[in-house]
Amino acid sequence: MSTKQGKQTYTNDRKVYIKETAAIVGPREKEGPLGDYFDEVQNEDFDEKSWERAEAKFTGSVFQKLMRKIQLKTDDIDCILAGDLMNQCIASSIGLRDSGVPYLGLFGACSTIAEGMVTGSLLINSGGMDNVICMASSNFCAAEKTFRMPVEQGGQRPPTAQWTVSGAAGLWLSSQSGGPVITSVTIGKITDFNVTDANNMGAAMAPAAADTIIAHLSDLGLEPSYYDAIITGDLGLTGSGMLRELMDMHGYSLYDERNNCFRHQDCGAMIFDPIKQKTHSGGSGCGCIASVFASYFYKQLQGGNLKRILVVGTGALMSPVSVKQSESISGIAHAVAIEAQ
Amino acid sequence: MSTKQGKQTYTNDRKVYIKETAAIVGPREKEGPLGDYFDEVQNEDFDEKSWERAEAKFTGSVFQKLMRKIQLKTDDIDCILAGDLMNQCIASSIGLRDSGVPYLGLFGACSTIAEGMVTGSLLINSGGMDNVICMASSNFCAAEKTFRMPVEQGGQRPPTAQWTVSGAAGLWLSSQSGGPVITSVTIGKITDFNVTDANNMGAAMAPAAADTIIAHLSDLGLEPSYYDAIITGDLGLTGSGMLRELMDMHGYSLYDERNNCFRHQDCGAMIFDPIKQKTHSGGSGCGCIASVFASYFYKQLQGGNLKRILVVGTGALMSPVSVKQSESISGIAHAVAIEAQ
Repeated sequence: MSTKQGKQTYTNDRKVYIKETAAIVGPREKEGPLGDYFDEVQNEDFDEKSWERAEAKFTGSVFQKLMRKIQLKTDDIDCILAGDLMNQCIASSIGLRDSGVPYLGLFGACSTIAEGMVTGSLLINSGGMDNVICMASSNFCAAEKTFRMPVEQGGQRPPTAQWTVSGAAGLWLSSQSGGPVITSVTIGKITDFNVTDANNMGAAMAPAAADTIIAHLSDLGLEPSYYDAIITGDLGLTGSGMLRELMDMHGYSLYDERNNCFRHQDCGAMIFDPIKQKTHSGGSGCGCIASVFASYFYKQLQGGNLKRILVVGTGALMSPVSVKQSESISGIAHAVAIEAQ
Repeated sequence: MSTKQGKQTYTNDRKVYIKETAAIVGPREKEGPLGDYFDEVQNEDFDEKSWERAEAKFTGSVFQKLMRKIQLKTDDIDCILAGDLMNQCIASSIGLRDSGVPYLGLFGACSTIAEGMVTGSLLINSGGMDNVICMASSNFCAAEKTFRMPVEQGGQRPPTAQWTVSGAAGLWLSSQSGGPVITSVTIGKITDFNVTDANNMGAAMAPAAADTIIAHLSDLGLEPSYYDAIITGDLGLTGSGMLRELMDMHGYSLYDERNNCFRHQDCGAMIFDPIKQKTHSGGSGCGCIASVFASYFYKQLQGGNLKRILVVGTGALMSPVSVKQSESISGIAHAVAIEAQ
């Protein structure tokens, strides 16, 4: 059973464990500061003829890798929750069409893996499900082609632009004990601060992240210092600065005075080295927070370096058509509180 | 709490009521055989400058209409589950961005409203949620532009093609008593029978519908005759015939010998008059089963003409890019068993 706390938050009375994870990324992610943490590296095209097929193969391969790791049969998995940023989420549906597992498609843009953890942990708390797999993916060239310009055109990027991560990740959520526990989840509202620049997604998503983090802390009566780290993905460098300012404005400082650093970390800001790799504002895409959480942060929780974290997936709810029609870019963020055991 | 039955089905121990519905459709739907059942009719463009904005306005207006009907405050709604077929589901996110309600985006193609009922009833069974709104929408011209050709081009359609419904619908699921009850739900698997013709979605989805209906009946040990009606949406005329044949092949006849008719009904086949309205194989789009269930079938349950029905939302998991890349069109279907009180 789950219990509603305040307006948007649910605590899990039935423990939900993140028992295992898998992440496959591309070469740029492998060369970045977190390169050693990922399970596997593959070329961005994954030996496929199209970028869309490549992204689907990342998804399918992560599912296979996770199933090998966890040694369950597909019949033991109650449901897959998955999504991506391709039109009509084809990377997930094509990549998982041979899985033989009941499938619920999600659309949360780059917040998808967090939306999966939120929904999956509540489904397990409904009592009927015991094993759920959450997945998300993105691919640099597939996203460039969909949202911006073909890479071959060599268009110049402004400093606020982010680089879509090529990668996919999967998480096994289970009622069986073992691994870090999802203790509570907060479902975000759509926020819109009238940002219309598709090359500045951090600005569109930072208000959503602030809104959801404040809702989470307020619903549970917590201060940011309750968490060893508050992890967003993927605001990038630009959006991270905005989030920290917005939180300050609302009286919640994300600065950790004792350790003289921010307790806020952003997967988009961490996955690349912005100077050496020339990745401007950082990483983005559904695969960004998914692969960084599934590898680096999951290992920090397992190793005891982090005890309590809040993972906040952020998504920009837009399409190339909506941007061309001068629609503003709405944002959404979902938060998942996780404790090491 | 929910209880797993067999492999894909969950029974709801906590009763989930469909307490209220709302549906707004376009003029073609109003002129069809079910025209009198819809709450409101609006022009396809809904006085907006683009088809995408029009679809978003259908969604936003249905939400407003439903909120007026149910006389709850937005704070009383725990969560909206919504999706559509636009790229990156912008109709839902733009249409609902001012709602102020926690939002989980779904992608299930035309199965979205069924995916919403499946997920929503399990979320209510997790104990923490009491009121969930499920929504789905589509718009004829927006879908033609996205998936086929601009309407202005006047391209000819083969007889298997379907007409996207312009419309949106919303359902209020609640733990408070009143209205028909969702008794069990079955989560579908992705099926793929190698259909590659984007003008024959019925053929792509019929195997998914058969797979989910058989899973549902087998998980619960039921025969089709347990239900007064098994309602799919939107297989259209072509896909409906295929489903009936497939079910026969698996030993489950959908024919009702006593009443000399099929106990299977398809929202896509019902919403238009194929001869008078020249709609070929029938209606389609996320708004098709959503608006027909929310109006016609909901009133049949309320009026006592139907006591027990199985609603099976079917979706074709494809994009224009995947079709051009010769990918086959996968299908998915989710089933929701509903009983009048």
